[in-house]
Amino acid sequence: MKTHTLLMPLDMHLHLRDGVMLENVAPLSAYSFSGGLVMPNLVPPVDSLESLKAYKERIMATIPNDFFEPYMTLFYKNYDRKFLTGIAEHITAIKLYPAGITTNSEGGVSSFDIEEMRETLEAMSDLGIPLCVHGETDGFVMDREAEFMSVYELLAKNFPNLKIIMEHITTKAAVDMLDKYKNLYATITVHHLLLTLDDVIGGMMMPHNFCKPIAKRPEDLDALLSVALEAHPKVMFGSDSAPHSREKKESAGCAAGIFTAPIALQLLCEIFEQYNKLENLQAFVSDNAQNIYGICPEFKEVILEKRPFLVPKDYNGVVPMYSDKIINWAIQSIE
Amino acid sequence: MKTHTLLMPLDMHLHLRDGVMLENVAPLSAYSFSGGLVMPNLVPPVDSLESLKAYKERIMATIPNDFFEPYMTLFYKNYDRKFLTGIAEHITAIKLYPAGITTNSEGGVSSFDIEEMRETLEAMSDLGIPLCVHGETDGFVMDREAEFMSVYELLAKNFPNLKIIMEHITTKAAVDMLDKYKNLYATITVHHLLLTLDDVIGGMMMPHNFCKPIAKRPEDLDALLSVALEAHPKVMFGSDSAPHSREKKESAGCAAGIFTAPIALQLLCEIFEQYNKLENLQAFVSDNAQNIYGICPEFKEVILEKRPFLVPKDYNGVVPMYSDKIINWAIQSIE
Repeated sequence: MKTHTLLMPLDMHLHLRDGVMLENVAPLSAYSFSGGLVMPNLVPPVDSLESLKAYKERIMATIPNDFFEPYMTLFYKNYDRKFLTGIAEHITAIKLYPAGITTNSEGGVSSFDIEEMRETLEAMSDLGIPLCVHGETDGFVMDREAEFMSVYELLAKNFPNLKIIMEHITTKAAVDMLDKYKNLYATITVHHLLLTLDDVIGGMMMPHNFCKPIAKRPEDLDALLSVALEAHPKVMFGSDSAPHSREKKESAGCAAGIFTAPIALQLLCEIFEQYNKLENLQAFVSDNAQNIYGICPEFKEVILEKRPFLVPKDYNGVVPMYSDKIINWAIQSIE
Repeated sequence: MKTHTLLMPLDMHLHLRDGVMLENVAPLSAYSFSGGLVMPNLVPPVDSLESLKAYKERIMATIPNDFFEPYMTLFYKNYDRKFLTGIAEHITAIKLYPAGITTNSEGGVSSFDIEEMRETLEAMSDLGIPLCVHGETDGFVMDREAEFMSVYELLAKNFPNLKIIMEHITTKAAVDMLDKYKNLYATITVHHLLLTLDDVIGGMMMPHNFCKPIAKRPEDLDALLSVALEAHPKVMFGSDSAPHSREKKESAGCAAGIFTAPIALQLLCEIFEQYNKLENLQAFVSDNAQNIYGICPEFKEVILEKRPFLVPKDYNGVVPMYSDKIINWAIQSIE
């Protein structure tokens, strides 16, 4: 049987939520990943050392039996240098949301005034704290990410030593930015390597393929695949796995978010094998992130095998992508 | 109180379905419209004189107390001249669906081979039977209508005396075709004068705004408004009102279709008043269709008044557009 081994897989964009949902989903990520960059968009957002530490403790309490490092992030606000100096050792990155752009982002940035942000971003630059960005404007849904490129350019030019990560990119426009500024990086989800808008609304309307940013055009999918499959050194895997209850997904006014954490590695094997690029998956799913973030995850070896795997209908009421469908790779063992 | 009077309003693209759904929705159209062009995409499709007559009888049986003319259409196939000659007096148009493109269109046209279609389309041209077309390719969802323009051009050039109606147009590309070929006409829905893709998936995912063809970009909406508000003489109102049960709309894998029949005239008043074009609504909603199709509907006078109107949550389990929302015009009286 064909197998493929991944060492220390990392999910560099992960929503673990809180409370019962946290208890449900965190063990699923901890099972197959060495670590994950945990998003701070709780209600209220994670914006202090106290709430950060408490959230990390709540995460760790859900995974007593696995090695898993929750790389913590802070919700971006215009913090001062003293605060950032004190919190730097406890965080891996700061996550910036434009206000109101996605789930629980109401307290985000409402205008990109460089002078208002300068103290924070210069301090982050000096302290080596990367800035992760949800890069969408409030424009027309298919244009939001492309329109945001001017903000990335503004940030990249003004803070040349700040590592800026374009999160969950979905467009050729974002891919084209990677080689334009040395301090721009990107995460790519597994679902954006599989879907276009056709899979959301091209046939029936499919709530479990509905996420922000929305899956875009075929030429965008091709651009994402090109850099992911080559494991472009500035690109990392980040699932943006975003669990919601079945009720919230399968009703009128469905919430945005695709739940992929428990099947992400299997799907990545399937995609990379399909394009004969399995040899690049290790870099995409771990090595690049280690280099970009300067992190050293604990040892974990995940062996996947090529065999039909029936994706569960749901995980305690959370419906995953490809629910009840057969995919072609499965996890064989984890050490 | 501000009022507006419409004479003999016509809905030139209407899905009445069959069975219990027909009994539910036909009276709602018959209440406020003088007539409607009834789509033939039943299962099986309406493709014979017998099934056409039987369907018309079933429709009439649901509306014993209203004056309402169901203008009947036949499901396009490559019929021969003899058949068409025999059925011509019973139909108002023939509706062409590309195979599999929307609800119950499986038996439609799978390739646009002009020579294969020539006998049928020449006979229709000679007999004065208009061809109504669902103009979408099977391409990427946002491009399907624009890609279909080459088929419209092919048809318009090869059959210059055939009236071709581009149904439920949604793009600037289709609007631009109207003045390019003298035998091309169009219907426009009320929802495509209100929605863009932002209203479908830009915030939460909204199944009751989900239809085929999907609502497009802001510049497309502007183009549609420009010809509708001016009541361009080649443009008619056709609701494409497409009822599905609440269960089919509010579950994973939601069916395409927006139910607008009972609120269409009210919404049209609101839109046309908003742009100070109420004086053109009569042409858009009746006169143009009378001229294009050469039909003379029975007298009906609908007086609408400007007052808040709470749209019902549903009509016997069928959820309308703007369900449970207040709109600004209501029907005052009908004679």
